[in-house]
Order: sequence, then C-alpha cells, then structure tokens
Amino acid sequence: MQASGVKELFNVLTPADAFERLRPCLKGPRGVERVQTADGLGRVLAQDLRAPEDLPTFRRSTMDGFAVRAADTFGASEALPAYLTVVGEVLMGREATSSPALGEAVRIATGGMIPDGADAVVMVEHTQDVDATTIEVLRPVAAGEHVIDVGEDVRRGDPLLGRGHILRPQDVGGLLAFGLTDVEVARRLSVGIISGGDEIVAPASVPQPGQIRDINSYTLATLVDRAGHLPVLLGVVPDVYERLEAAARDGLERCDVLILSAGSSVSTRDMTAQVIAALGEPGVLVHGVSLKPGKPTILAYAQDKPVFGLPGNPVSCIVTFDLFVAPALYALSGCPERPPRRGVAAHLARNVASAPGRQDYFQVRLDRRDGELWAEPVFGKSNLIYTLVRSDGMVRIDLDRSGLNAGEAVEVILF
Amino acid sequence: MQASGVKELFNVLTPADAFERLRPCLKGPRGVERVQTADGLGRVLAQDLRAPEDLPTFRRSTMDGFAVRAADTFGASEALPAYLTVVGEVLMGREATSSPALGEAVRIATGGMIPDGADAVVMVEHTQDVDATTIEVLRPVAAGEHVIDVGEDVRRGDPLLGRGHILRPQDVGGLLAFGLTDVEVARRLSVGIISGGDEIVAPASVPQPGQIRDINSYTLATLVDRAGHLPVLLGVVPDVYERLEAAARDGLERCDVLILSAGSSVSTRDMTAQVIAALGEPGVLVHGVSLKPGKPTILAYAQDKPVFGLPGNPVSCIVTFDLFVAPALYALSGCPERPPRRGVAAHLARNVASAPGRQDYFQVRLDRRDGELWAEPVFGKSNLIYTLVRSDGMVRIDLDRSGLNAGEAVEVILF
Repeated sequence: MQASGVKELFNVLTPADAFERLRPCLKGPRGVERVQTADGLGRVLAQDLRAPEDLPTFRRSTMDGFAVRAADTFGASEALPAYLTVVGEVLMGREATSSPALGEAVRIATGGMIPDGADAVVMVEHTQDVDATTIEVLRPVAAGEHVIDVGEDVRRGDPLLGRGHILRPQDVGGLLAFGLTDVEVARRLSVGIISGGDEIVAPASVPQPGQIRDINSYTLATLVDRAGHLPVLLGVVPDVYERLEAAARDGLERCDVLILSAGSSVSTRDMTAQVIAALGEPGVLVHGVSLKPGKPTILAYAQDKPVFGLPGNPVSCIVTFDLFVAPALYALSGCPERPPRRGVAAHLARNVASAPGRQDYFQVRLDRRDGELWAEPVFGKSNLIYTLVRSDGMVRIDLDRSGLNAGEAVEVILF
Repeated sequence: MQASGVKELFNVLTPADAFERLRPCLKGPRGVERVQTADGLGRVLAQDLRAPEDLPTFRRSTMDGFAVRAADTFGASEALPAYLTVVGEVLMGREATSSPALGEAVRIATGGMIPDGADAVVMVEHTQDVDATTIEVLRPVAAGEHVIDVGEDVRRGDPLLGRGHILRPQDVGGLLAFGLTDVEVARRLSVGIISGGDEIVAPASVPQPGQIRDINSYTLATLVDRAGHLPVLLGVVPDVYERLEAAARDGLERCDVLILSAGSSVSTRDMTAQVIAALGEPGVLVHGVSLKPGKPTILAYAQDKPVFGLPGNPVSCIVTFDLFVAPALYALSGCPERPPRRGVAAHLARNVASAPGRQDYFQVRLDRRDGELWAEPVFGKSNLIYTLVRSDGMVRIDLDRSGLNAGEAVEVILF
C-alpha cells in the first residue's frame, strides 16, 4: 500500500546536486546558425569575435572647439590669452584637410576628425573671437585633451565578445560599429511539451464533470518562449502506458528537449518515470529532489537529449522549470552560466516555517509600505493556479534553515 | 561664443521631475487588439477580467487515497482502526458515480472528483488492505481534509487580472483554466528611430575617413524590441534642417512614438531641438536634465505623440532610453508602473566621485570574490561603445550624494 510514494524519498538529492547529475550531459551549443546582428538580441554567441580594425579608425574630437597644437596654449589664461589664427574648419563626416601649424587652429565639432598636426582640442567655451580669423585661448590644454585616439575604444585584434555571451542592445551596436553585420549564434532549441492525465482537456473545450482544462502545457510553453527557445505543444496524452511512451518517443525524435508534465497521482507519476526510463541510455539520472514544491521531479537523458518529468501541479511546474529546465537550456546553448533572474530585496512580512534538509519555495505578493518593500506570503494548496497569479514572485528557504522570520531581509525572485 | 551649450543649463530638471512633465501626456493604452491568450506572454491587458465560473467546478482530491465520510474515521488509530467497505473507484476525468454511505469508502487518485456523500480523503499511506473490499483506516481525517472545494481557487465573479497587468506564464495558464482563449491587450507601439549626423553611415558601408558606422539606431531598435514594441528604422539623416524636419514629420505621422538620436555637436543638438519644437503643440517640455550622462535630453509632445531627442553618444543613449523612453512606453500601454528591472546587489570596488545636484550613472563589471559580488567601475569617455560592451550593468549615484565609497552596498541594474 505504501508503494512508490515512499520509495521516491530514498533517493532524494538537493536541487543543486540533482542538476549536477545532469550537467555533464548538457554540452552546448547543439547547433549554430548565422543571423543578422541587428536581429541578434538575446541570442547566444557561438563564435569568439575579435576587432577587425581599430575603433575609432581616426582621431576624433569629444568637444566643440578648435583643434590645436597643445604647446601653443601652454600658460594661456584670461589675463594673458594665447592668440591663434583659424586656418580652416573640419566638416563632419569629411577627412580633415587643413593642418594647423604652430600658432594655428582649426574649427572642429564633437565627433570631428582631428587634423594632422593637431594634438588637442580647446573647448569653444574657453576661447573668444578676436576677429574673423583670430581667437584668444583662455586656458591651456594638455596634449591628447578632448581627443579620442585611434584604437582607444578597441584595438585591432582585441577580443570583442566570446562564445556563450548573450547579445544585449549595446553588443548589437558594438558589433555593427565594426561592420560585423552577421554573427554565428546557437540555434534556438525546440522543446517538446507533453501533458499527461485522463482528466485534462484542451482549453477551448468545455470540461465535463471530473475534467479540467490544460494549464501546464501553456504555462510551460510561455516559460520556454521567455527563455528564448521554441515550444512544441505535443498535446495531452491519456494515462495509458503505450500511448504515453509513443508520444514521448515521437517528441524526443522531433525535439531537442522533452518535457513531460506528469499527472498528479502516484500511479501516473510512476508511469511517467517508466516511460522516461524506456527512452534510452543513460535514462533516469534523478528521481526525487529535496524540494518543496517539486519533490517528484525526474531528470533524465536519452538519445543525446535531456528529458524532464515535471510534477503536474502548476506551482511545482513553474518552480522546477526555473530550477532545472531553464539552466539546462542555457547550458545547451553554450552559456557557461545562466544570467541572473530579476529579483528585488524585501522584508518578509511574517514567519514562514520549513523542514530543514529541504529547499522550500513559497510565493509572495509585494507591498510597498513607507517606501520599503514587504513580501507577504501567499499560501494555498500547490494545486491552485491562482495562488501563482496573485503572487509577484518567490522566496527560497535554504536547505539548512528551518524557516524564515518576520522582518528578515529576503530576495524575491520575480515571475 | 558660449551659445546654447551653456543655455541648456538654465533649465535643467532632475530626471524624475523631467519625466513628470511628460507623464500627463502619456495616457494609455493607445489602441487595443485581441490576441490568443497562448500568445499573450508579455502583453499588457486592456480589460478587467472576472472569473466566468467557479474554479474548480467540482470538489477535487489533493491526495491518492479514499474518499470517505470524515465522521467514520473519528478516533481511528493504529491500535483501533476504523473499518470501511470499498464500494467503488473514482476514475480520473470521469464523474464520481459511487457515493460512500456510512461505513463506506471510494478509491480516489490525486485530482479525482470527490463523490457526493464524501467530505474528506484518507491518504493511502494511512490505510491498510484487509481484503478485496475492506480497508483499515489508521488515522482520523477532518471534514474537508485533502479536498479542494468548489471555487476554492477562484469564485465565480471574482476579479482575475486587471487592465495594465503584464501577462506572465502563470497568467496565461490561469486564463486558459477558465477557457478564456483570447484577451484584449494594448496594441504594440511603433517607435520611429532617426539618427542624425553627417558623419554617420550604415553598418554595412565602409566608412571613409571622418565617418563612423551607425550604432545608435540599432541599439535603440533592440531596446524598443526588448520593451515589447516595434522599432521602425527611419534611417540616418544628414545635418540639414529641412531634411531632418521632413524626416521627423514623416516619422511622427507613421509611428506612435518618435526618437531622434541627435548628432553630438552643439549645433546639431540645437538643430534637433528646433526640429522637435516645430512638430506641433505643446512641443518641447524638457530640454536638459541634471543627469550624467544624458544632460542634453529633450522630452517633447506633438500631434498627440511623445518625441524624444536623445544624446548621440551610445552610453547616454542607453541611460536616457531607460530613464525616459522605457517608462513612457509602459505608460502608453496602460501600465500604471514600469516593472522592476533586473538588478543585483553588490559591493562597490572603489570610490566614485559625483557632483551633488546631478544624478550620475556609471558602468560596472561584476566580479565574484569569496562568494560576494563586487562592482568594478568601467570608466571611459561616454563616446566609447565598448565601455558598455565590457560592462554588466549600471550603478546610480543619487542627486544628494557627492559620490559613493569603496565597499558600499550598491544595486547594479543589469543591462
């Protein structure tokens, strides 16, 4: 009678240890493709890039003013200005043609090309017009002042960005500054999602008594989407071993990663474990994690692809996706580390108990009181989707704690 | 000679005050559309949703075990078990047909429909088989134990999610649980981007001496994309008033929001300001912010659309987008507040000075030392794009501070 509900406890690992069992299998990237750099936001670089030239390729002014020889301004002051002859102007976007000789200056705007001969720029605010071709310089400038040197941003051959880097807006700009208009990135992964359970019907259906609509397939699909990959909805499969195995085999063939969102009864969970074990070697690596919610999680590897058996209730589903599937997707894309999640610091509004030796997650709603953020726990059976909808994020209780105290500083991982 | 570079200082506002000048114009949403809920991740709700029915619509078991009348188990113990007759089984996804009378139990799995007559579930672990139709119950259960009641998740008519809410994975699941397969959301905004400057050429071009490739258009486009809206690249426009004005008028007609990424010289910036002022009433609301980098920012409103004149250098461009354009896009979509950005807590690795009365942002690289995060400032002229590429995030120095101290706890806003 005590069956596998209890057996699962024998082999429970901490969430971190559980992921370490899977990690050696997750070499990435699993494939690469070239994309337009301008479309590359969020993609994972699959090549090491070096600067093909100096940036900038010519000396540029950082101020509006006059390109000069710095030595001509030494000792200049309001009382004793230096007098310089303006011999020309640098036009924006054009090669600087007039070179200032000793005692000469060339008008220049911010971003303009510093002419040969000049080694500094005097700000316009530190000059005064004497006549059409003469200025007074009221302060000295040092050589190099208000000048960006050739290669000052990046030198030719210097590393720009490496494999595994996730492209951000400034990276897109930085690569285009060198004319690198396409880049090699990790292919997006297709992630198959199967929901199991005789009681589950499609969201557009009208459930009969005893039936509920499929929530997990769509929650998981949007989580996959948000991680930058491609969800493939493989449908709801009834609790019949042969049908579940056939659906899993088909999904594993078509996709890079497979998620089975198990039914919630023990017999259905056992069936999911058996199906996953039958998919190939090495098979099930982890069955049971010291985690609440999310204990019956299965991590497996078969046919060179990871397979996840996630608990059927919506809260566990989100927690275990975040702890196991998301880091796996980053690793499979060649990212050495998953990027930090969005989090905020808050004070816990009330005591929350936990069992030591188990990593607990609970949901909170954020309240701002007197300018400080407070995290108010949202309790509810983990089968309830609206405890999640009503929450702003989750708080973790570490393995070695037996709870958290009201007022304690906590980090809220935002949904 | 001191021209408008100095004039800009006359009218500088704090970043918060500057945004408040624009905020009253930013009523949203600017249009709505219906989308499939399953495709709704990240979209902003434009309707208030209430529960069309109770969730769940029938009583469900949260455990594998037996549906019973709780009164039958009162006083049950290992020494003195209660004996119950098993009169049937609830099949998953089916209506519960056998009702337990006094002294009877019905086999049930997690998620199964509680039969009429039963008011609690005994966990299978707390029972023992006596024969094929009799069980011993070893512990008592209270009425309602291991049962999710009708409407326990949400009651019919209760508010689900309101206007302005940004849909997350669990929200998509939660709406589909009610069969709400499509929802009304704010239309994505088209954001026109014009880069000004005689020196700017397209990224695929080979720049001639004095020319540089366009970075800002693409950095801005990816920032718009990341905020969930639609960038429209309107091209690079040379520093000729008539051409810039024509491009701005055309862009304002075609798009919901217009960004002009100005050239960096004072004369070009002035031209941008004049063009923006000519677009219509009320015109320029803010010209100059006590912010570094980003002082010469222009916030304007014309033809019922916001117009932003952002400084030309890449660092200012990212800072001012984040401070002004991103919150405007949320407001225009009907979000009451922008969602928190991704941030991490770190210690500052060295002293950083600042001018009081000005809000400063500087870039940092994150280092992990002995398990703690340290933020190492990345200095460089703000014209350099690679100081941004080499950084992980930004740290803010508030208006009332004259700097930050080494070792101080800071929040790093991640790029």
